[in-house]
Amino acid sequence: MRRILLSVEYDGTDFSGWQKQSDRRTVQEVIEKALYKVTKKKTDVRGASRTDAGVHSKDQKVVFDTDSTVPTEKFAIALNCVLPKDVVINSADEVETDFNLMTQVQGKTYRYTIYNSNIPTVMNRRYCWQYIGTNKLDEYAMQKAAQYLVGEHDFSAFKSSGGATRTSVRTIYSCNVTREGKFIYIDVTGSGFLYNMVRIIAGTLLEVGINKKKIEDMDNIVKSKDRKLAGITAPPEGLCLEKIYFHKIS
Amino acid sequence: MRRILLSVEYDGTDFSGWQKQSDRRTVQEVIEKALYKVTKKKTDVRGASRTDAGVHSKDQKVVFDTDSTVPTEKFAIALNCVLPKDVVINSADEVETDFNLMTQVQGKTYRYTIYNSNIPTVMNRRYCWQYIGTNKLDEYAMQKAAQYLVGEHDFSAFKSSGGATRTSVRTIYSCNVTREGKFIYIDVTGSGFLYNMVRIIAGTLLEVGINKKKIEDMDNIVKSKDRKLAGITAPPEGLCLEKIYFHKIS
Repeated sequence: MRRILLSVEYDGTDFSGWQKQSDRRTVQEVIEKALYKVTKKKTDVRGASRTDAGVHSKDQKVVFDTDSTVPTEKFAIALNCVLPKDVVINSADEVETDFNLMTQVQGKTYRYTIYNSNIPTVMNRRYCWQYIGTNKLDEYAMQKAAQYLVGEHDFSAFKSSGGATRTSVRTIYSCNVTREGKFIYIDVTGSGFLYNMVRIIAGTLLEVGINKKKIEDMDNIVKSKDRKLAGITAPPEGLCLEKIYFHKIS
Repeated sequence: MRRILLSVEYDGTDFSGWQKQSDRRTVQEVIEKALYKVTKKKTDVRGASRTDAGVHSKDQKVVFDTDSTVPTEKFAIALNCVLPKDVVINSADEVETDFNLMTQVQGKTYRYTIYNSNIPTVMNRRYCWQYIGTNKLDEYAMQKAAQYLVGEHDFSAFKSSGGATRTSVRTIYSCNVTREGKFIYIDVTGSGFLYNMVRIIAGTLLEVGINKKKIEDMDNIVKSKDRKLAGITAPPEGLCLEKIYFHKIS
Protein backbone atom coordinates (compact mmCIF):
# COMPACT_ATOMS: atom_id res chain seq x y z
CA MET A 1 0.00 0.00 0.00
CA ARG A 2 1.36 3.41 -0.99
CA ARG A 3 0.12 6.86 0.00
CA ILE A 4 0.16 9.31 -2.93
CA LEU A 5 0.05 13.11 -2.73
CA LEU A 6 -1.31 15.03 -5.72
CA SER A 7 -1.22 18.71 -6.61
CA VAL A 8 -4.46 19.45 -8.46
CA GLU A 9 -5.48 22.40 -10.64
CA TYR A 10 -9.11 23.08 -11.54
CA ASP A 11 -11.47 25.59 -13.03
CA GLY A 12 -14.24 25.75 -10.45
CA THR A 13 -16.82 27.32 -12.77
CA ASP A 14 -18.69 24.13 -13.56
CA PHE A 15 -18.21 22.44 -10.17
CA SER A 16 -20.34 22.53 -7.02
CA GLY A 17 -17.09 22.88 -5.09
CA TRP A 18 -14.55 20.34 -3.88
CA GLN A 19 -16.57 18.15 -1.54
CA LYS A 20 -18.69 15.22 -2.71
CA GLN A 21 -22.45 15.75 -2.68
CA SER A 22 -25.09 13.45 -4.06
CA ASP A 23 -26.16 14.37 -7.61
CA ARG A 24 -23.81 17.38 -7.90
CA ARG A 25 -20.62 17.56 -9.95
CA THR A 26 -17.71 18.03 -7.55
CA VAL A 27 -13.93 17.90 -7.94
CA GLN A 28 -13.55 15.16 -5.32
CA GLU A 29 -16.04 12.93 -7.14
CA VAL A 30 -14.43 13.54 -10.54
CA ILE A 31 -10.98 12.59 -9.21
CA GLU A 32 -12.32 9.44 -7.53
CA LYS A 33 -13.98 8.41 -10.81
CA ALA A 34 -10.70 8.98 -12.68
CA LEU A 35 -8.81 6.92 -10.07
CA TYR A 36 -11.30 4.11 -10.55
CA LYS A 37 -10.63 4.14 -14.29
CA VAL A 38 -6.87 4.04 -13.74
CA THR A 39 -6.66 1.55 -10.82
CA LYS A 40 -9.93 -0.40 -11.29
CA LYS A 41 -10.53 0.01 -7.57
CA LYS A 42 -12.83 2.28 -5.62
CA THR A 43 -10.52 4.78 -3.91
CA ASP A 44 -11.38 7.58 -1.48
CA VAL A 45 -9.44 10.83 -1.77
CA ARG A 46 -9.03 13.59 0.79
CA GLY A 47 -8.39 17.25 -0.08
CA ALA A 48 -6.58 19.88 1.98
CA SER A 49 -9.06 22.63 1.18
CA ARG A 50 -12.84 22.51 0.82
CA THR A 51 -13.14 25.08 -1.94
CA ASP A 52 -16.68 26.34 -2.57
CA ALA A 53 -18.75 26.14 -5.73
CA GLY A 54 -17.16 28.30 -8.44
CA VAL A 55 -13.79 28.69 -6.68
CA HIS A 56 -10.65 27.71 -8.61
CA SER A 57 -7.42 26.04 -7.55
CA LYS A 58 -3.89 25.86 -8.88
CA ASP A 59 -2.54 23.72 -6.04
CA GLN A 60 -5.19 21.74 -4.19
CA LYS A 61 -3.40 18.98 -2.28
CA VAL A 62 -5.02 15.57 -2.45
CA VAL A 63 -4.04 12.30 -0.78
CA PHE A 64 -5.10 8.68 -1.39
CA ASP A 65 -3.93 5.16 -0.62
CA THR A 66 -3.50 2.58 -3.34
CA ASP A 67 -2.09 -0.87 -3.95
CA SER A 68 -2.17 -0.27 -7.71
CA THR A 69 0.94 -1.21 -9.72
CA VAL A 70 0.91 2.14 -11.56
CA PRO A 71 4.31 3.75 -10.86
CA THR A 72 3.99 6.96 -8.84
CA GLU A 73 5.59 9.08 -11.55
CA LYS A 74 2.99 7.84 -14.07
CA PHE A 75 -0.06 8.69 -11.96
CA ALA A 76 -0.36 12.29 -13.15
CA ILE A 77 -0.20 11.33 -16.84
CA ALA A 78 -2.60 8.40 -16.39
CA LEU A 79 -5.15 10.47 -14.48
CA ASN A 80 -4.89 13.41 -16.90
CA CYS A 81 -5.81 11.05 -19.74
CA VAL A 82 -9.18 10.26 -18.15
CA LEU A 83 -10.01 13.47 -16.27
CA PRO A 84 -12.34 16.10 -17.77
CA LYS A 85 -10.63 19.17 -19.23
CA ASP A 86 -11.35 21.40 -16.23
CA VAL A 87 -9.21 19.31 -13.83
CA VAL A 88 -5.50 18.56 -14.19
CA ILE A 89 -3.04 16.73 -11.92
CA ASN A 90 0.15 18.81 -11.86
CA SER A 91 2.21 16.29 -9.89
CA ALA A 92 2.06 13.01 -7.98
CA ASP A 93 4.51 12.03 -5.24
CA GLU A 94 4.74 9.14 -2.80
CA VAL A 95 4.63 10.14 0.86
CA GLU A 96 5.00 8.20 4.14
CA THR A 97 2.01 5.97 4.87
CA ASP A 98 1.36 7.94 8.07
CA PHE A 99 1.41 11.30 6.25
CA ASN A 100 -1.54 13.29 7.63
CA LEU A 101 -2.72 15.99 5.23
CA MET A 102 -4.56 18.04 7.84
CA THR A 103 -1.70 18.31 10.32
CA GLN A 104 0.91 18.83 7.59
CA VAL A 105 -0.66 21.97 6.13
CA GLN A 106 1.11 25.03 7.53
CA GLY A 107 -0.54 27.68 5.41
CA LYS A 108 -2.27 28.66 2.18
CA THR A 109 -2.15 31.47 -0.32
CA TYR A 110 -5.31 32.64 -2.05
CA ARG A 111 -5.54 35.19 -4.85
CA TYR A 112 -8.69 37.20 -5.37
CA THR A 113 -8.89 38.91 -8.79
CA ILE A 114 -11.04 41.96 -9.55
CA TYR A 115 -11.41 43.23 -13.13
CA ASN A 116 -11.89 46.99 -13.06
CA SER A 117 -12.95 48.48 -16.39
CA ASN A 118 -15.92 50.11 -18.10
CA ILE A 119 -15.90 47.27 -20.69
CA PRO A 120 -16.33 43.66 -19.48
CA THR A 121 -13.66 41.05 -20.23
CA VAL A 122 -14.57 38.02 -22.32
CA MET A 123 -11.42 35.94 -22.18
CA ASN A 124 -10.90 36.24 -18.39
CA ARG A 125 -14.56 36.25 -17.36
CA ARG A 126 -14.37 32.85 -15.63
CA TYR A 127 -11.51 33.93 -13.35
CA CYS A 128 -12.38 37.36 -11.95
CA TRP A 129 -15.01 39.52 -10.31
CA GLN A 130 -15.97 42.03 -12.93
CA TYR A 131 -16.38 45.43 -11.36
CA ILE A 132 -17.67 47.29 -14.43
CA GLY A 133 -18.12 51.05 -14.53
CA THR A 134 -16.27 54.32 -14.69
CA ASN A 135 -15.28 54.01 -11.01
CA LYS A 136 -11.54 53.35 -10.85
CA LEU A 137 -10.65 51.41 -7.72
CA ASP A 138 -8.00 53.01 -5.47
CA GLU A 139 -5.59 50.11 -5.05
CA TYR A 140 -3.29 52.16 -2.80
CA ALA A 141 -6.08 52.69 -0.26
CA MET A 142 -6.97 48.99 -0.52
CA GLN A 143 -3.34 48.04 0.13
CA LYS A 144 -3.17 50.26 3.22
CA ALA A 145 -6.46 48.90 4.59
CA ALA A 146 -5.29 45.33 3.99
CA GLN A 147 -2.40 45.79 6.42
CA TYR A 148 -4.86 45.86 9.36
CA LEU A 149 -5.59 42.20 8.57
CA VAL A 150 -1.99 41.07 8.98
CA GLY A 151 -1.19 39.25 12.23
CA GLU A 152 -3.10 36.99 14.60
CA HIS A 153 -6.71 38.10 15.00
CA ASP A 154 -10.16 36.81 15.74
CA PHE A 155 -11.60 37.10 12.21
CA SER A 156 -15.26 36.63 13.20
CA ALA A 157 -16.12 39.77 11.19
CA PHE A 158 -14.87 37.96 8.07
CA LYS A 159 -16.70 34.69 8.52
CA SER A 160 -19.97 33.49 7.02
CA SER A 161 -22.19 31.44 9.27
CA GLY A 162 -22.11 27.73 8.52
CA GLY A 163 -18.41 27.05 8.98
CA ALA A 164 -17.82 24.60 11.83
CA THR A 165 -14.52 25.57 13.45
CA ARG A 166 -13.52 25.63 17.11
CA THR A 167 -12.01 29.09 16.96
CA SER A 168 -12.14 32.13 14.69
CA VAL A 169 -8.54 33.08 15.45
CA ARG A 170 -6.26 32.85 12.43
CA THR A 171 -2.90 34.34 11.43
CA ILE A 172 -2.57 36.31 8.22
CA TYR A 173 1.11 36.43 7.22
CA SER A 174 0.62 38.86 4.35
CA CYS A 175 -2.15 40.55 2.39
CA ASN A 176 -1.12 42.58 -0.64
CA VAL A 177 -3.17 44.48 -3.19
CA THR A 178 -1.56 45.16 -6.56
CA ARG A 179 -2.76 46.38 -9.94
CA GLU A 180 -1.74 45.15 -13.38
CA GLY A 181 -3.65 47.21 -15.91
CA LYS A 182 -7.34 46.47 -15.42
CA PHE A 183 -6.68 43.62 -12.98
CA ILE A 184 -6.48 44.12 -9.23
CA TYR A 185 -5.01 41.21 -7.29
CA ILE A 186 -5.51 40.57 -3.59
CA ASP A 187 -2.93 37.99 -2.45
CA VAL A 188 -3.51 36.61 1.05
CA THR A 189 -1.28 34.12 2.82
CA GLY A 190 -2.44 32.75 6.14
CA SER A 191 -2.31 29.84 8.56
CA GLY A 192 -5.85 28.94 7.59
CA PHE A 193 -9.07 30.60 6.57
CA LEU A 194 -12.62 30.72 7.91
CA TYR A 195 -15.69 30.05 5.78
CA ASN A 196 -15.81 32.67 2.96
CA MET A 197 -13.05 34.66 4.70
CA VAL A 198 -11.10 35.68 1.59
CA ARG A 199 -14.26 36.59 -0.30
CA ILE A 200 -15.43 38.81 2.57
CA ILE A 201 -11.97 40.40 2.73
CA ALA A 202 -12.23 41.09 -1.04
CA GLY A 203 -15.73 42.54 -0.70
CA THR A 204 -14.61 44.79 2.16
CA LEU A 205 -11.45 45.96 0.37
CA LEU A 206 -13.53 46.80 -2.71
CA GLU A 207 -15.61 49.16 -0.57
CA VAL A 208 -12.38 50.83 0.54
CA GLY A 209 -11.35 51.03 -3.14
CA ILE A 210 -14.50 53.00 -4.02
CA ASN A 211 -14.21 55.13 -0.87
CA LYS A 212 -17.41 53.74 0.63
CA LYS A 213 -15.27 52.68 3.59
CA LYS A 214 -12.19 54.48 4.92
CA ILE A 215 -8.78 52.86 5.32
CA GLU A 216 -8.99 53.04 9.13
CA ASP A 217 -12.45 51.43 9.12
CA MET A 218 -10.68 48.13 8.48
CA ASP A 219 -9.06 48.33 11.91
CA ASN A 220 -12.45 48.80 13.58
CA ILE A 221 -14.07 46.01 11.57
CA VAL A 222 -11.41 43.50 12.62
CA LYS A 223 -11.73 44.54 16.29
CA SER A 224 -15.55 44.52 16.21
CA LYS A 225 -15.74 40.78 15.31
CA ASP A 226 -19.07 41.80 13.77
CA ARG A 227 -19.81 40.33 10.32
CA LYS A 228 -22.36 43.09 9.66
CA LEU A 229 -19.63 45.76 9.66
CA ALA A 230 -17.58 44.09 6.92
CA GLY A 231 -18.41 44.29 3.21
CA ILE A 232 -20.25 41.87 0.97
CA THR A 233 -19.07 38.33 0.23
CA ALA A 234 -17.40 38.77 -3.16
CA PRO A 235 -18.47 36.23 -5.81
CA PRO A 236 -16.61 32.90 -6.06
CA GLU A 237 -15.30 33.29 -9.64
CA GLY A 238 -12.63 35.77 -8.52
CA LEU A 239 -11.10 33.36 -5.97
CA CYS A 240 -8.26 30.93 -6.60
CA LEU A 241 -6.37 28.71 -4.16
CA GLU A 242 -2.83 29.43 -5.36
CA LYS A 243 -0.61 27.42 -3.02
CA ILE A 244 -0.70 25.10 -0.03
CA TYR A 245 2.42 25.02 2.15
CA PHE A 246 3.77 22.08 4.13
CA HIS A 247 6.59 24.11 5.64
CA LYS A 248 6.47 26.83 8.27
CA ILE A 249 5.79 30.33 6.93
CA SER A 250 7.20 33.37 8.66
CA MET B 1 -30.25 56.93 -40.25
CA ARG B 2 -26.76 56.37 -38.82
CA ARG B 3 -24.21 53.70 -39.71
CA ILE B 4 -22.43 52.33 -36.62
CA LEU B 5 -19.14 50.42 -36.56
CA LEU B 6 -18.48 48.07 -33.63
CA SER B 7 -15.34 46.30 -32.46
CA VAL B 8 -16.44 42.97 -30.98
CA GLU B 9 -14.64 40.48 -28.74
CA TYR B 10 -15.87 36.94 -28.27
CA ASP B 11 -14.97 33.53 -26.92
CA GLY B 12 -15.82 31.24 -29.84
CA THR B 13 -15.97 28.05 -27.75
CA ASP B 14 -19.73 27.91 -27.45
CA PHE B 15 -20.54 29.41 -30.86
CA SER B 16 -21.05 27.74 -34.24
CA GLY B 17 -18.97 30.56 -35.71
CA TRP B 18 -19.84 34.10 -36.76
CA GLN B 19 -22.41 33.59 -39.49
CA LYS B 20 -26.11 33.06 -38.83
CA GLN B 21 -27.40 29.53 -39.31
CA SER B 22 -30.83 28.23 -38.49
CA ASP B 23 -30.98 26.55 -35.04
CA ARG B 24 -27.29 27.11 -34.22
CA ARG B 25 -25.91 29.66 -31.75
CA THR B 26 -23.81 32.17 -33.72
CA VAL B 27 -22.21 35.50 -32.85
CA GLN B 28 -24.07 37.36 -35.59
CA GLU B 29 -27.43 36.13 -34.28
CA VAL B 30 -26.58 36.97 -30.67
CA ILE B 31 -25.61 40.54 -31.61
CA GLU B 32 -28.79 41.02 -33.68
CA LYS B 33 -30.88 39.82 -30.73
CA ALA B 34 -29.07 42.25 -28.41
CA LEU B 35 -29.65 45.11 -30.89
CA TYR B 36 -33.33 44.25 -30.95
CA LYS B 37 -33.47 44.54 -27.16
CA VAL B 38 -31.72 47.91 -27.24
CA THR B 39 -33.42 49.52 -30.27
CA LYS B 40 -36.72 47.57 -30.37
CA LYS B 41 -36.18 47.14 -34.12
CA LYS B 42 -35.00 44.19 -36.18
CA THR B 43 -31.52 45.12 -37.38
CA ASP B 44 -29.18 43.21 -39.69
CA VAL B 45 -25.47 43.31 -38.89
CA ARG B 46 -22.54 42.52 -41.18
CA GLY B 47 -19.14 41.25 -39.96
CA ALA B 48 -15.73 41.73 -41.56
CA SER B 49 -14.61 38.16 -40.89
CA ARG B 50 -16.53 34.90 -41.04
CA THR B 51 -14.79 33.19 -38.15
CA ASP B 52 -15.43 29.45 -37.87
CA ALA B 53 -16.97 27.48 -35.03
CA GLY B 54 -14.68 27.61 -32.00
CA VAL B 55 -12.53 30.50 -33.26
CA HIS B 56 -12.17 33.56 -31.02
CA SER B 57 -11.97 37.27 -31.77
CA LYS B 58 -10.64 40.34 -30.02
CA ASP B 59 -11.51 42.79 -32.81
CA GLN B 60 -14.25 41.57 -35.14
CA LYS B 61 -15.57 44.62 -37.01
CA VAL B 62 -19.35 44.83 -37.30
CA VAL B 63 -21.52 47.39 -39.08
CA PHE B 64 -25.24 48.16 -38.88
CA ASP B 65 -27.67 50.95 -39.75
CA THR B 66 -30.06 52.35 -37.21
CA ASP B 67 -32.50 55.20 -36.67
CA SER B 68 -32.48 54.54 -32.92
CA THR B 69 -32.11 57.55 -30.63
CA VAL B 70 -29.43 55.77 -28.54
CA PRO B 71 -26.34 58.02 -28.64
CA THR B 72 -23.42 56.35 -30.45
CA GLU B 73 -21.16 56.51 -27.41
CA LYS B 74 -23.80 54.65 -25.35
CA PHE B 75 -24.22 51.75 -27.77
CA ALA B 76 -21.36 49.66 -26.35
CA ILE B 77 -22.60 49.97 -22.76
CA ALA B 78 -26.23 49.33 -23.73
CA LEU B 79 -25.37 46.24 -25.80
CA ASN B 80 -22.99 44.87 -23.14
CA CYS B 81 -25.87 44.99 -20.64
CA VAL B 82 -27.93 42.55 -22.69
CA LEU B 83 -25.26 40.42 -24.43
CA PRO B 84 -24.28 36.99 -23.05
CA LYS B 85 -20.99 36.88 -21.16
CA ASP B 86 -18.98 35.43 -24.06
CA VAL B 87 -19.50 38.49 -26.30
CA VAL B 88 -18.46 42.05 -25.54
CA ILE B 89 -18.62 45.27 -27.59
CA ASN B 90 -15.30 47.05 -27.08
CA SER B 91 -16.25 50.22 -28.96
CA ALA B 92 -18.96 51.81 -31.11
CA ASP B 93 -18.32 54.64 -33.59
CA GLU B 94 -20.42 56.42 -36.17
CA VAL B 95 -19.09 56.12 -39.75
CA GLU B 96 -20.19 57.62 -43.06
CA THR B 97 -23.45 56.15 -44.34
CA ASP B 98 -21.64 54.91 -47.46
CA PHE B 99 -18.93 53.17 -45.39
CA ASN B 100 -18.40 49.74 -46.99
CA LEU B 101 -16.91 47.23 -44.57
CA MET B 102 -15.65 44.82 -47.22
CA THR B 103 -13.75 47.38 -49.32
CA GLN B 104 -12.41 49.20 -46.23
CA VAL B 105 -10.61 46.20 -44.74
CA GLN B 106 -6.91 46.39 -45.67
CA GLY B 107 -5.64 43.49 -43.61
CA LYS B 108 -6.02 41.28 -40.56
CA THR B 109 -3.83 39.82 -37.83
CA TYR B 110 -4.52 36.38 -36.45
CA ARG B 111 -2.76 34.74 -33.52
CA TYR B 112 -2.55 30.96 -33.26
CA THR B 113 -1.60 29.70 -29.77
CA ILE B 114 -0.03 26.31 -29.07
CA TYR B 115 0.44 25.07 -25.48
CA ASN B 116 3.52 22.87 -25.32
CA SER B 117 3.89 20.96 -22.05
CA ASN B 118 3.68 17.46 -20.61
CA ILE B 119 0.89 18.64 -18.27
CA PRO B 120 -2.31 20.10 -19.80
CA THR B 121 -3.44 23.61 -18.91
CA VAL B 122 -6.78 24.13 -17.19
CA MET B 123 -7.10 27.90 -17.10
CA ASN B 124 -6.10 28.48 -20.74
CA ARG B 125 -7.69 25.38 -22.23
CA ARG B 126 -10.34 27.30 -24.17
CA TYR B 127 -7.76 29.45 -25.98
CA CYS B 128 -4.99 27.16 -27.22
CA TRP B 129 -4.12 23.96 -29.02
CA GLN B 130 -2.72 21.69 -26.34
CA TYR B 131 0.27 19.83 -27.69
CA ILE B 132 0.89 17.57 -24.68
CA GLY B 133 3.96 15.36 -24.38
CA THR B 134 7.65 15.41 -23.72
CA ASN B 135 8.33 16.71 -27.25
CA LYS B 136 9.55 20.31 -26.98
CA LEU B 137 8.66 22.27 -30.11
CA ASP B 138 11.58 23.97 -31.86
CA GLU B 139 10.24 27.50 -32.19
CA TYR B 140 13.41 28.69 -33.96
CA ALA B 141 12.89 26.20 -36.81
CA MET B 142 9.21 27.19 -36.94
CA GLN B 143 10.15 30.86 -37.19
CA LYS B 144 12.57 30.20 -40.05
CA ALA B 145 10.03 28.09 -41.93
CA ALA B 146 7.37 30.77 -41.45
CA GLN B 147 9.44 33.27 -43.45
CA TYR B 148 8.73 31.31 -46.67
CA LEU B 149 5.09 32.36 -46.26
CA VAL B 150 5.83 36.09 -46.29
CA GLY B 151 5.05 37.91 -49.54
CA GLU B 152 2.49 37.52 -52.31
CA HIS B 153 1.81 33.85 -53.08
CA ASP B 154 -0.84 31.52 -54.37
CA PHE B 155 -1.73 29.85 -51.04
CA SER B 156 -3.71 26.94 -52.53
CA ALA B 157 -1.64 24.53 -50.42
CA PHE B 158 -3.04 26.26 -47.30
CA LYS B 159 -6.71 26.27 -48.24
CA SER B 160 -9.48 23.87 -47.27
CA SER B 161 -12.01 23.09 -49.95
CA GLY B 162 -15.31 24.86 -49.49
CA GLY B 163 -14.13 28.46 -49.51
CA ALA B 164 -15.63 30.39 -52.44
CA THR B 165 -13.03 32.93 -53.52
CA ARG B 166 -12.01 34.09 -57.01
CA THR B 167 -8.29 33.72 -56.41
CA SER B 168 -5.99 31.95 -53.96
CA VAL B 169 -3.38 34.71 -54.15
CA ARG B 170 -2.90 36.57 -50.91
CA THR B 171 -0.16 38.71 -49.36
CA ILE B 172 1.31 37.80 -45.99
CA TYR B 173 3.01 40.88 -44.51
CA SER B 174 4.52 39.07 -41.55
CA CYS B 175 4.46 35.68 -39.83
CA ASN B 176 6.31 35.36 -36.54
CA VAL B 177 6.70 32.47 -34.14
CA THR B 178 7.61 33.29 -30.55
CA ARG B 179 7.67 31.39 -27.28
CA GLU B 180 6.64 32.61 -23.82
CA GLY B 181 7.21 29.73 -21.43
CA LYS B 182 4.90 26.91 -22.46
CA PHE B 183 3.03 29.05 -24.99
CA ILE B 184 4.04 29.27 -28.63
CA TYR B 185 2.44 32.11 -30.57
CA ILE B 186 2.13 32.27 -34.35
CA ASP B 187 1.22 35.84 -35.35
CA VAL B 188 0.21 36.27 -38.97
CA THR B 189 -0.70 39.56 -40.64
CA GLY B 190 -2.01 39.47 -44.19
CA SER B 191 -4.18 41.17 -46.77
CA GLY B 192 -6.75 38.43 -46.37
CA PHE B 193 -6.95 34.73 -45.63
CA LEU B 194 -8.34 31.69 -47.41
CA TYR B 195 -10.64 29.17 -45.75
CA ASN B 196 -8.77 27.58 -42.79
CA MET B 197 -5.51 29.17 -43.99
CA VAL B 198 -4.09 30.15 -40.59
CA ARG B 199 -5.05 26.81 -39.05
CA ILE B 200 -3.27 24.93 -41.87
CA ILE B 201 -0.24 27.21 -41.44
CA ALA B 202 -0.24 26.35 -37.71
CA GLY B 203 -0.58 22.61 -38.41
CA THR B 204 2.29 22.74 -40.89
CA LEU B 205 4.56 24.80 -38.62
CA LEU B 206 3.93 22.35 -35.79
CA GLU B 207 5.30 19.56 -38.00
CA VAL B 208 8.42 21.68 -38.54
CA GLY B 209 8.59 22.19 -34.78
CA ILE B 210 8.71 18.43 -34.15
CA ASN B 211 11.13 17.90 -37.05
CA LYS B 212 8.61 15.89 -39.07
CA LYS B 213 9.07 18.49 -41.79
CA LYS B 214 12.27 20.42 -42.57
CA ILE B 215 12.49 24.20 -42.66
CA GLU B 216 13.03 24.24 -46.44
CA ASP B 217 10.00 21.99 -47.00
CA MET B 218 7.87 25.07 -46.39
CA ASP B 219 9.25 26.65 -49.55
CA ASN B 220 8.28 23.59 -51.60
CA ILE B 221 4.82 23.36 -50.03
CA VAL B 222 4.01 26.97 -50.92
CA LYS B 223 5.25 26.49 -54.52
CA SER B 224 3.42 23.14 -54.93
CA LYS B 225 -0.05 24.70 -54.37
CA ASP B 226 -0.92 21.18 -53.17
CA ARG B 227 -2.99 20.98 -49.99
CA LYS B 228 -1.86 17.36 -49.46
CA LEU B 229 1.75 18.46 -48.90
CA ALA B 230 0.90 20.85 -46.05
CA GLY B 231 0.19 19.74 -42.47
CA ILE B 232 -3.09 19.14 -40.68
CA THR B 233 -5.70 21.79 -40.06
CA ALA B 234 -4.98 22.77 -36.46
CA PRO B 235 -8.05 22.84 -34.17
CA PRO B 236 -10.12 26.05 -33.94
CA GLU B 237 -9.63 26.74 -30.21
CA GLY B 238 -6.05 27.98 -30.79
CA LEU B 239 -7.11 30.66 -33.28
CA CYS B 240 -7.98 34.27 -32.46
CA LEU B 241 -8.72 37.18 -34.80
CA GLU B 242 -6.58 39.82 -33.11
CA LYS B 243 -6.99 42.90 -35.28
CA ILE B 244 -8.67 44.19 -38.44
CA TYR B 245 -6.99 47.12 -40.19
CA PHE B 246 -8.70 49.85 -42.21
CA HIS B 247 -5.40 51.46 -43.19
CA LYS B 248 -2.75 50.25 -45.59
CA ILE B 249 -0.19 47.86 -44.08
CA SER B 250 3.36 47.75 -45.37
